[in-house]
Amino acid sequence: MPETSWREIVAEKRLRQQATIPKDWVLLNLPPKEQLDVSNVPETCGLLSTKEIEITNSPVEVLLGNMANSVWSSVEVTTAFSKRAIIAHQLTNCLTEIFIERGRKRAEELDEHLKKTGNVVGPLHGKSVCYTNTLLPNNRQYKGLPMSLKDQINIKDIESTMGYVSWIGLYAKKNSVLADILESLGAVLYVKTNIPQTLMWPETFNHVFGRTSNPFNRSLTSGGSSGGEGALIALKGSPLGVGSDIGGSVRIPGAFNGVYGLRPSYGRIPYAGCVNSLEGQDSILSVLGPLSNSIGGIKSFVKGVVSQQPWLKDPLAVRKRWSEEEYQLIEHGSGEQLCFGILWDDEVIKPHPPIFRALQETKKALIEAGHKVIDWKPLKHGEIYTVARDIWGAGATEDYNVTSAPTGEPVIMSMSPEAEKIVANADTPSFRRPPDGISAYELWQVQKKKRDLRQEYVDYWQASVELTGTGRPVDAVISPSAPFVAPPHGLNTYANYTMIWNVLDYPALVIPVSKVDQTLDTKQSAHTFYGTEDQANYDLYEPETFKNAPISIQVVARTLEEEAVIAMSEIVDKALKEREYASRL
Amino acid sequence: MPETSWREIVAEKRLRQQATIPKDWVLLNLPPKEQLDVSNVPETCGLLSTKEIEITNSPVEVLLGNMANSVWSSVEVTTAFSKRAIIAHQLTNCLTEIFIERGRKRAEELDEHLKKTGNVVGPLHGKSVCYTNTLLPNNRQYKGLPMSLKDQINIKDIESTMGYVSWIGLYAKKNSVLADILESLGAVLYVKTNIPQTLMWPETFNHVFGRTSNPFNRSLTSGGSSGGEGALIALKGSPLGVGSDIGGSVRIPGAFNGVYGLRPSYGRIPYAGCVNSLEGQDSILSVLGPLSNSIGGIKSFVKGVVSQQPWLKDPLAVRKRWSEEEYQLIEHGSGEQLCFGILWDDEVIKPHPPIFRALQETKKALIEAGHKVIDWKPLKHGEIYTVARDIWGAGATEDYNVTSAPTGEPVIMSMSPEAEKIVANADTPSFRRPPDGISAYELWQVQKKKRDLRQEYVDYWQASVELTGTGRPVDAVISPSAPFVAPPHGLNTYANYTMIWNVLDYPALVIPVSKVDQTLDTKQSAHTFYGTEDQANYDLYEPETFKNAPISIQVVARTLEEEAVIAMSEIVDKALKEREYASRL
Repeated sequence: MPETSWREIVAEKRLRQQATIPKDWVLLNLPPKEQLDVSNVPETCGLLSTKEIEITNSPVEVLLGNMANSVWSSVEVTTAFSKRAIIAHQLTNCLTEIFIERGRKRAEELDEHLKKTGNVVGPLHGKSVCYTNTLLPNNRQYKGLPMSLKDQINIKDIESTMGYVSWIGLYAKKNSVLADILESLGAVLYVKTNIPQTLMWPETFNHVFGRTSNPFNRSLTSGGSSGGEGALIALKGSPLGVGSDIGGSVRIPGAFNGVYGLRPSYGRIPYAGCVNSLEGQDSILSVLGPLSNSIGGIKSFVKGVVSQQPWLKDPLAVRKRWSEEEYQLIEHGSGEQLCFGILWDDEVIKPHPPIFRALQETKKALIEAGHKVIDWKPLKHGEIYTVARDIWGAGATEDYNVTSAPTGEPVIMSMSPEAEKIVANADTPSFRRPPDGISAYELWQVQKKKRDLRQEYVDYWQASVELTGTGRPVDAVISPSAPFVAPPHGLNTYANYTMIWNVLDYPALVIPVSKVDQTLDTKQSAHTFYGTEDQANYDLYEPETFKNAPISIQVVARTLEEEAVIAMSEIVDKALKEREYASRL
Repeated sequence: MPETSWREIVAEKRLRQQATIPKDWVLLNLPPKEQLDVSNVPETCGLLSTKEIEITNSPVEVLLGNMANSVWSSVEVTTAFSKRAIIAHQLTNCLTEIFIERGRKRAEELDEHLKKTGNVVGPLHGKSVCYTNTLLPNNRQYKGLPMSLKDQINIKDIESTMGYVSWIGLYAKKNSVLADILESLGAVLYVKTNIPQTLMWPETFNHVFGRTSNPFNRSLTSGGSSGGEGALIALKGSPLGVGSDIGGSVRIPGAFNGVYGLRPSYGRIPYAGCVNSLEGQDSILSVLGPLSNSIGGIKSFVKGVVSQQPWLKDPLAVRKRWSEEEYQLIEHGSGEQLCFGILWDDEVIKPHPPIFRALQETKKALIEAGHKVIDWKPLKHGEIYTVARDIWGAGATEDYNVTSAPTGEPVIMSMSPEAEKIVANADTPSFRRPPDGISAYELWQVQKKKRDLRQEYVDYWQASVELTGTGRPVDAVISPSAPFVAPPHGLNTYANYTMIWNVLDYPALVIPVSKVDQTLDTKQSAHTFYGTEDQANYDLYEPETFKNAPISIQVVARTLEEEAVIAMSEIVDKALKEREYASRL
């Protein structure tokens, strides 16, 4: 047995975390636990100045513009977001590592440098090697913009516990490739955000940092595994954050917290140098992706990172430059008349009324904007879910046990708050039966099946050329992000609406559409259920349970079409906003 | 037990193969077994007309030009190569499936079409969907060019036995994606080529078709697993062929038979719809790559295939267009003063004298051409070899046993002709101990180690910027293709000089440099051996053993740099040829 119990290690770590919060920023008028919607607290609590509110409410593109023109300094912007992040943390428990002093110093350096050199192209920070002038990106295109990172993304000299007690005290020896690139582009790092232990949950709870709640209704989950990012960005404690996504871990928090979030294709964004679960699992890969309050934030992240030739630094990064031609949708008729396929239902679990309404509104908005919309029938989605579970499950139990062993902390078996209480009393919970390991040969058979299913899906998408009338297959698929909006803690049991696109390796971007409306989103009469899971999901729905929760959709394109999925999402987003505006007139 | 013994099935299949050879093309004056060098037989046997010799001796770029200008018809070209392929087969046993009648009909159709439509851009054959005119490739850029394919590449209605008796009689229901693309570009398919059973050998022998020999010295191996392609193209029975490469299977036959061969990066060339070994192994992937008698042939293959947007048809194909900018070496100082790193030795097995001489000549030629050359020290090559073996071995035995089980054919355990004789007497040989399977979790640990080694290698390459004096890391590495030229049958026991680049996923192109010279390539005095394998390799070398064997090197670039590795290979090839020319003056 270890000398110190894991609870003692946690207690010490929590004290250290507490000490990183500036005393002046502690909320004295903390809303009571019973107050579910805390989304307005940052602006009403009195800690932020009018200017700080203006700064933190600005989308990335406005921030970058105002910083480039020296309207706002990096110190001003960083301070405003740091303050608001600390407020957000006190409301939803969204942060893990807090290093705002380090961020402030970095912002000062950048401001200093900008003063000295002017806003011109110059040498990059860090060790990046640029080969020719044609490849030089605009220097420091992030101009001192603060960015938040999911806990697992290594930053030199900062811990990446990933919610494992056993990893407390392991300080990163160097930056991950992504942190390096962001800093060389002029980003200011200041906080890391909460995750579930193992990362393999679509909610956010671990023994080290506890649980992250949804800022729009704290009885609901923030989603996961990038739940800290979702809550933080929704509360505008960060303009742009980075999560990871192996089955929806960027998009679920994006959707549940009403912010934009992109799952890029394998290898488009460098992952090297991060800590992770299931390492060595080479089949369905986790990817890093941005979350932000605007698509402009998503775009500036992808374009910026790719401009730094991550393939020279990460062996798994794809050598593919940002393509302006693909962003202009040249392969999609220049975006003039797109054809979208709408996936209403995966034929396993029927989405709740708010999701159905969002899809309907999207369809109407796109048609009004001159685009075409057809139905997108799921192709063997159930089978695809099964192979993914089998692949991850092949060695997952051993992975978790080996990692948690040093301190004897229990492997978390449920995200339910009930389970949390039980864990507090006994160290051997067992709510979810861990999968048995399989042999390498058996794993290959599942992976072969997955490849065959991916082939079928490629052929299926390509064959849609017969249905669209545009001479092209569907340009993008519009899909639910989940069969529900953010559910109560412990009840996010179905991540398949996001996971499907991970297995197929299609880029997918979540867009907020609306919020649950107690009048519009009433419970419907029962349909013919696909199975018991579908019935349980039907039974779960009551508008009151999901009060105030954001509603989102996903826009899905084809492998390595990051540019196109961003451009098409802009079109969808604009159509939705115009429709909303028109409906108000 | 199966009703028919596997030997009977083989006998029937061999009769069927024999029947596909036109009687008029059977060599009556077949050279005796003792004649080792048969490389001149195609031109001296009397079966080929002067024009057919001229056609078959032409490189791809000349063939395409003359066909475009109607100097030669596809029927003429196809007939000439078909004849020469049949000659080559009688000399080296390089073919599996022979369907020259089908090829001839296809050539007639293409000639007919060319006559009707002229040499203009028009609609593609097949089901390819082109989205906009800007994406239309030049129609039928292969203009009726015959192309040979490795046995495993499915062609509709033709068997792909891959050397397994159990797969005899399995006719492909449809084309592989690559065969589809090649046909839509105007290629004429007419033969498939020999491989070893399982593909996982660097030589070419199986129970169905027997052994393929080296045309320059039939006591030597043709290499493998694309040994049939190597021998066929060396004898100019095909201008352009396609092999596959998981550890050197394109490059080893390329090197041993003195032809050019490219191993592209994972996913650059579509693999979908081929049969394979170790399917579902998602970590170190087999890739398809071209072999040809000129780099022009290699280039026209990659450029042509990529122009057809294979990523719309194969889920594993990378969305990356042919980049003319990368081919122009913009990232490599426009190719004006390149810096090459030469890997003299992997510090496990020291290459034989002919290899050392080829590297020295290459170094001199490059310096004379104005480029820089530095030494390239191996970084943990031995460790990298081990992880590759462990990954493939994780489920290999089960894979082979399951595949061979239906007919009870033995799994081949050695490439030695001695073993072959023993197999003829007993069905249970056991010369190579099959690896034990491991668990999925154990496999992940090896794969994790592999990722870490790849990361180290990326950093190592990048760090060479300090050594080159060009402001860039080394532009390419020049490496042996093997520690020997083609060895006697059964003795190709070391594929690590090629395999290293598969594990790292670096594109590598083999270039013929010279041939073994009994005067220049004398045995050297013993060096301090790295180990017993190194000593055994030293002991193996006698110039006489390797008489007349081609000597080759590899040019290696970074992941997904197919364009650059082709362009830099052109530079190396030209420098070598100019030096050779100058030495003759």
